[in-house]
Amino acid sequence: MVADGLPDVIGLSGLPDAVTICEVGPRDGLQNESTVVATEVKREFIERLVDAGLRRVETTSFVPAAWIPQLADAEQLLASLPRRPGVRYPVLVPNARGLARALDAGVEDIAVFASATETFAQRNLNRSVAQSLEMFAPVVHDARAAGLGVRGYLSMCFGDPWEGPVPVQQVADVAASLMALGCTELSLGDTIGVATPGQVFAVLAAVQAKGMSIDAVAVHFHDTYGQALSNTLAALQAGVRVVDASAGGLGGCPYAESATGNLATEDLIWQLTGLGIETGVDLDRLVATSVWMAEQLGRPSPSRVVRALGAPS
Amino acid sequence: MVADGLPDVIGLSGLPDAVTICEVGPRDGLQNESTVVATEVKREFIERLVDAGLRRVETTSFVPAAWIPQLADAEQLLASLPRRPGVRYPVLVPNARGLARALDAGVEDIAVFASATETFAQRNLNRSVAQSLEMFAPVVHDARAAGLGVRGYLSMCFGDPWEGPVPVQQVADVAASLMALGCTELSLGDTIGVATPGQVFAVLAAVQAKGMSIDAVAVHFHDTYGQALSNTLAALQAGVRVVDASAGGLGGCPYAESATGNLATEDLIWQLTGLGIETGVDLDRLVATSVWMAEQLGRPSPSRVVRALGAPS
Repeated sequence: MVADGLPDVIGLSGLPDAVTICEVGPRDGLQNESTVVATEVKREFIERLVDAGLRRVETTSFVPAAWIPQLADAEQLLASLPRRPGVRYPVLVPNARGLARALDAGVEDIAVFASATETFAQRNLNRSVAQSLEMFAPVVHDARAAGLGVRGYLSMCFGDPWEGPVPVQQVADVAASLMALGCTELSLGDTIGVATPGQVFAVLAAVQAKGMSIDAVAVHFHDTYGQALSNTLAALQAGVRVVDASAGGLGGCPYAESATGNLATEDLIWQLTGLGIETGVDLDRLVATSVWMAEQLGRPSPSRVVRALGAPS
Repeated sequence: MVADGLPDVIGLSGLPDAVTICEVGPRDGLQNESTVVATEVKREFIERLVDAGLRRVETTSFVPAAWIPQLADAEQLLASLPRRPGVRYPVLVPNARGLARALDAGVEDIAVFASATETFAQRNLNRSVAQSLEMFAPVVHDARAAGLGVRGYLSMCFGDPWEGPVPVQQVADVAASLMALGCTELSLGDTIGVATPGQVFAVLAAVQAKGMSIDAVAVHFHDTYGQALSNTLAALQAGVRVVDASAGGLGGCPYAESATGNLATEDLIWQLTGLGIETGVDLDRLVATSVWMAEQLGRPSPSRVVRALGAPS
């Protein structure tokens, strides 16, 4: 309401007319919840997100159920979702077995997930950075051969809880190797939420210096230290046009102490709307969805916008 | 810790080498707490803030005790604070009676508080914008004649809960009238936290177009919709060098529904430190202070940084 009617004076350089939001709440959010959410609740969550206007909703992960019990219902969930024109339901896939399951489920987009640091590669994937890229190589190749879009996630691009700040050139090198496998998009992750805007600019510059187009780069910020939206603003000024966010701020990283919460989709939309940037999302419907999901999980949303607009009046 | 050793590549234009933080927790924070905090606790809070490196700590308000019972101990609090070189303890003053009390207490800096909108002027000051400026005129004049610094706060510069978005020119006009009284600094307030970065740029441009120097302009953002730090980043890019913040994110606006929380000083310092901008503040000492203050108030800090760094390990 209040964001309507603002002056058409921006003054910040490089901002786009439109941004694509990659909604990661159902996957990145729910996989980090201690409770396992029922498939029917997940289905309703995703359908409400789509009804609110989101067009890319990362749905689940085809990892072994022992890895992430919260997402063990990947097949059932995907089968329950009616396909709608223009709506994409990407899924995470770690290996050939996961890709086979994803193809059987009829997915159109997958994502693989690498790490910019050796320590997190060992802890998350139980192998080195180079070994993880070797593991992903045939997955990316076969997925592309099957006509799928392939996102390459890169974790710990800014700081690592064990290694500290991550050298910019190291991030750019791993990013280039990941993209060289044939990924169609790269998502740079601040997994523990420590980045600040200047560092975002530096990493984006280094990635482009390796020959990657900014059009293929997305950003994935966590709000652990309150920086996610500022970092997004910096990324937009640097030319990024795809932003990951999680409805209600669901999620985090179980490997990183205090790594609470993804950037909340609602807080992102408030900013984009104020800046006159089109998202196609109905904020009121999205807030209502996050309020409903918070009730299912039994705890309030950490999103500032959800708390402000979703509070009982 | 993680913010150390970042690359010296910023890439964002207009950022300064140093920023002055105007810490408003003891006044703007505590005046909006439902409980009245003991004078001795306030004194310890302020002393700990100064020990952490803050050099401008807005201490209290010389309004009638009936207006704000939480700050009824203004004289006793100021008398309890040892003066230290380079440390300023500004206070709010609404009228001649308040100024007389402030002068008796030996203050060196005062602030008056106007509204950019008629509705909030009526609700907060029980008079029109023009009448409130008339009320402040002799206060500012006499304070300057006594050698004091005078900050002019301007509330509702971006949105108003009753009027909606506030026209940029209206803000600039009232700001100019306020400064014309003789104020030495202007603090532009987003009292209900609805602003976004482009609007911040627009208001700062309009204020400068009225002849005000950006060196005399501070910004005061609330984080109701999660925008405070992004808006600060935009303000810094526009040339602002004085930023208001509240330790632990204490405070809000009792007149505005859901207007939770000032920008947390800790979240601001995380960003400024990452950007290589000097603040002179020891973040660990500040976080410890906010954790302690939250214990006094019996509720957790809304600051992301305080939650991440101040959590029991």
